[in-house]
Amino acid sequence: MGSSVEFSVGQSSRLTRTVTAAIVDAFAAVSTDDNPLHLDETYAANTRFGRRVAHGMIAASYISAMMGTQFPGRGAIYVSQSLNFVRPVYLDDVLDVVATVTAVNADKALVTMSTVVTNQDGKAVVRGEAVCLVEDVVAPPVVLT
Amino acid sequence: MGSSVEFSVGQSSRLTRTVTAAIVDAFAAVSTDDNPLHLDETYAANTRFGRRVAHGMIAASYISAMMGTQFPGRGAIYVSQSLNFVRPVYLDDVLDVVATVTAVNADKALVTMSTVVTNQDGKAVVRGEAVCLVEDVVAPPVVLT
Repeated sequence: MGSSVEFSVGQSSRLTRTVTAAIVDAFAAVSTDDNPLHLDETYAANTRFGRRVAHGMIAASYISAMMGTQFPGRGAIYVSQSLNFVRPVYLDDVLDVVATVTAVNADKALVTMSTVVTNQDGKAVVRGEAVCLVEDVVAPPVVLT
Repeated sequence: MGSSVEFSVGQSSRLTRTVTAAIVDAFAAVSTDDNPLHLDETYAANTRFGRRVAHGMIAASYISAMMGTQFPGRGAIYVSQSLNFVRPVYLDDVLDVVATVTAVNADKALVTMSTVVTNQDGKAVVRGEAVCLVEDVVAPPVVLT
């Protein structure tokens, strides 16, 4: 049992995405989350945020994108993800997703990662932890060096 | 402090959505998660799943949609969400999201909910817990009776 690919504590990977208004609009459509905080500039202006806020799940979706396509990579099976939405994401924020391996269970082929999403000011917007089953991962993971 | 709307332990709400191939394709585009497990029938046929699997984050996005639009409702601020992906979601699965209040902190205007997503066979696909700040919620929540 276990993946043919080696994972080790401290390995890290990064993915960068810009959250445009078009992305927020598209995410609202696909998720059916049409909360006016995300979509309506006038409504949002009268909230504590003062302007449109992106769906927190967009940042979460970028974590998912990293897991399945980059690190651990294709074949990874998502077991769990915790999400703490610590700051709002605004339109045109540039998000960095960084996943760092914190534990490896070789027998069960499970990799645990801290997952932190930061904005262009270096402030965390989402913090959490991901667990993936990596038994079916065949390509070397894309890691920071 | 605290919301003008009353929340109480045991309140529950449900939202139902069908995960079509078009939704999976759209979610792949907006999330940039183009893992072929989600998109490529031939690739997926050779995995342990045997067919295309929807992104787990689509189910998570429906939880988010419930939070912001239905229960707790407009004005709710997402504090945290845990997600345990316990079964795959397949194309054309009909998902029921049920959120049930498990704790209310009136002083801090925080509501904790269990969040369970089940498929048309009544099997859980995602289990977890959500916390929302409800201080700015003004409309009565949409609850099951």
